[in-house]
Amino acid sequence: MNQPAAPSTTSPTVILTGDRPTGPLHLGHYVGSLRGRVQYQHDYKQFVMLADSQALTDNMDDIDKVHRNVVEVALDYLAVGIDPAKTTIFIQSQIPELAELTFYYLNLVTVARLERNPTVKQEIVLRGFERDIPAGFLTYPASQAADITAFKAQVVPVGEDQIPMIEQTNEIVRRFNRTYNQEILVECKALVPEIGRLPGTDGKAKMSKSLGNTINLGASADEIRAAVKKVYTDPLHLRVEDPGHLEGNVAFIYLDAFDNDKASLAEMKAHYQRGGLGDSIVKKRLDAVLQELLAPIRARREELAKDKGYVMQVLKEGTMRAREVAARTTDEVKSALGLNYF
Amino acid sequence: MNQPAAPSTTSPTVILTGDRPTGPLHLGHYVGSLRGRVQYQHDYKQFVMLADSQALTDNMDDIDKVHRNVVEVALDYLAVGIDPAKTTIFIQSQIPELAELTFYYLNLVTVARLERNPTVKQEIVLRGFERDIPAGFLTYPASQAADITAFKAQVVPVGEDQIPMIEQTNEIVRRFNRTYNQEILVECKALVPEIGRLPGTDGKAKMSKSLGNTINLGASADEIRAAVKKVYTDPLHLRVEDPGHLEGNVAFIYLDAFDNDKASLAEMKAHYQRGGLGDSIVKKRLDAVLQELLAPIRARREELAKDKGYVMQVLKEGTMRAREVAARTTDEVKSALGLNYF
Repeated sequence: MNQPAAPSTTSPTVILTGDRPTGPLHLGHYVGSLRGRVQYQHDYKQFVMLADSQALTDNMDDIDKVHRNVVEVALDYLAVGIDPAKTTIFIQSQIPELAELTFYYLNLVTVARLERNPTVKQEIVLRGFERDIPAGFLTYPASQAADITAFKAQVVPVGEDQIPMIEQTNEIVRRFNRTYNQEILVECKALVPEIGRLPGTDGKAKMSKSLGNTINLGASADEIRAAVKKVYTDPLHLRVEDPGHLEGNVAFIYLDAFDNDKASLAEMKAHYQRGGLGDSIVKKRLDAVLQELLAPIRARREELAKDKGYVMQVLKEGTMRAREVAARTTDEVKSALGLNYF
Repeated sequence: MNQPAAPSTTSPTVILTGDRPTGPLHLGHYVGSLRGRVQYQHDYKQFVMLADSQALTDNMDDIDKVHRNVVEVALDYLAVGIDPAKTTIFIQSQIPELAELTFYYLNLVTVARLERNPTVKQEIVLRGFERDIPAGFLTYPASQAADITAFKAQVVPVGEDQIPMIEQTNEIVRRFNRTYNQEILVECKALVPEIGRLPGTDGKAKMSKSLGNTINLGASADEIRAAVKKVYTDPLHLRVEDPGHLEGNVAFIYLDAFDNDKASLAEMKAHYQRGGLGDSIVKKRLDAVLQELLAPIRARREELAKDKGYVMQVLKEGTMRAREVAARTTDEVKSALGLNYF
């Protein structure tokens, strides 16, 4: 694991993460980021952003989805144990300073550089934009740089594929500090989680709402059971007595991710590989593990969903705290640019 | 002249103009825009923007120039008679809502559309950017749309070459209103001034600081005299008795623009064309006309320059007034986008 520098006792290391609120979060998010955040909040000064503005870059025609999911994702955060007393949870669009910083950073990056950004290139293909790329989509690395630098984040947990975005941010940071001869902005490090992306229940590389291969954090016991039943295993493992394979076997990949009894799991794997262990036994174990993991999350989520006022209060307070920090940075940036008059 | 619609008595027509504060204003600005503004302020609700953020799009390496010229241009405004009691003069960068609107409008315009914008294309060539176009420069039509729509401007005085920018704004307006099914943003009309661009003193098509062919509004009597002496006339008019030509003759173009005694000017033109009238006589008249025009402007400018506190107070109050209007529009836009939570 690409460990961030140990936080100093005087000023804790700042970590920024977030999600595009376009749907409820699922096990993939839990493994890829949420579980980490619950840990990080003890050691770092953690900001978690509900990136509603960024979600709009390709959802201008479905704004209700974005608005609705801000609350859904906040419920997921609180349900998994992100503690608003330790972590600042905020809504991107409610911090105008992030748009202001984006505006100025756009002058520090060329069109050609944005077009070369591998993450942007990949996303353009993925979303089928071709020539009709919204300008806000091409320029979102500048927006991401604004989000990161506004909080002077030193650590940003990202997937492997997002590393070019971090490089882009650091280029802007260096160019700004060099041009204005002040150490105002702070470079950040990508923190790539040890466990890579969780595959979908169907065995596809990515768990994704649009592929219908997710298990949501708020899934009911029945939904979990049904999803586990359909989990992709070893298509060559036709008879119980046949040797089974672990590679690409989603049941075992999930067990690796969520089953804490590693010794017993190792035994089960060996048995499966030898032959004589049916998929139904493996899935029964997986079901038990996931039910145990998700039951308390679901219960907290349901409890919190009854008190939307509390959730909104958490978001409001977090956003106010975050805005103070972002406003301070924006003042420094604008002063460096000579944009202070009164 | 492309007259704007007569203002209604209930809510006056809103007009927005402005300048990039990259140098003191000159006679070209006076003819092309300032003179009009002094008139418009009686009939319209006029906003005049010191576009410092926009000036940064290609001056990130010379921010002092921009900062300094905000005050210089404000002095020019007040000296020519733009009245802060009638006109709202404001500084673009001090209204974060303009950056916010830009941010959202970037999602309503494609990269291909920006690249096709004739004004942007021309400016890219003019400034020698080629492949190293700052993203903020490519996207400045979205920023201009933000400036115009924030104040719900209905009329925008622009040169012929800026008409595509107005079209771009109106495309964004229509797309926004149609997508969110509300008449929030207002389409605007370009107001192209009757008298086109004033040529430089050297006869070049454009009066421009970088070409050294300007007469600044704050020019001293000596500077005016020296500039008039060098004004380009008719290179074929070598002897007094020769017939002179008026086409491209800057002395006469300036007299057309500034000499109010049209009858006597017509006589002088006829005499010049017949032959027997030396350039020095024409220039003497031009000098007298310009001295008379600029003496009171210079005097007011010098007076105001002694009280920078007053100028800053004018800008502060104007910016506060403008910000209230822009904030109202931004609230409407963000509500339409579902970006209201608290």
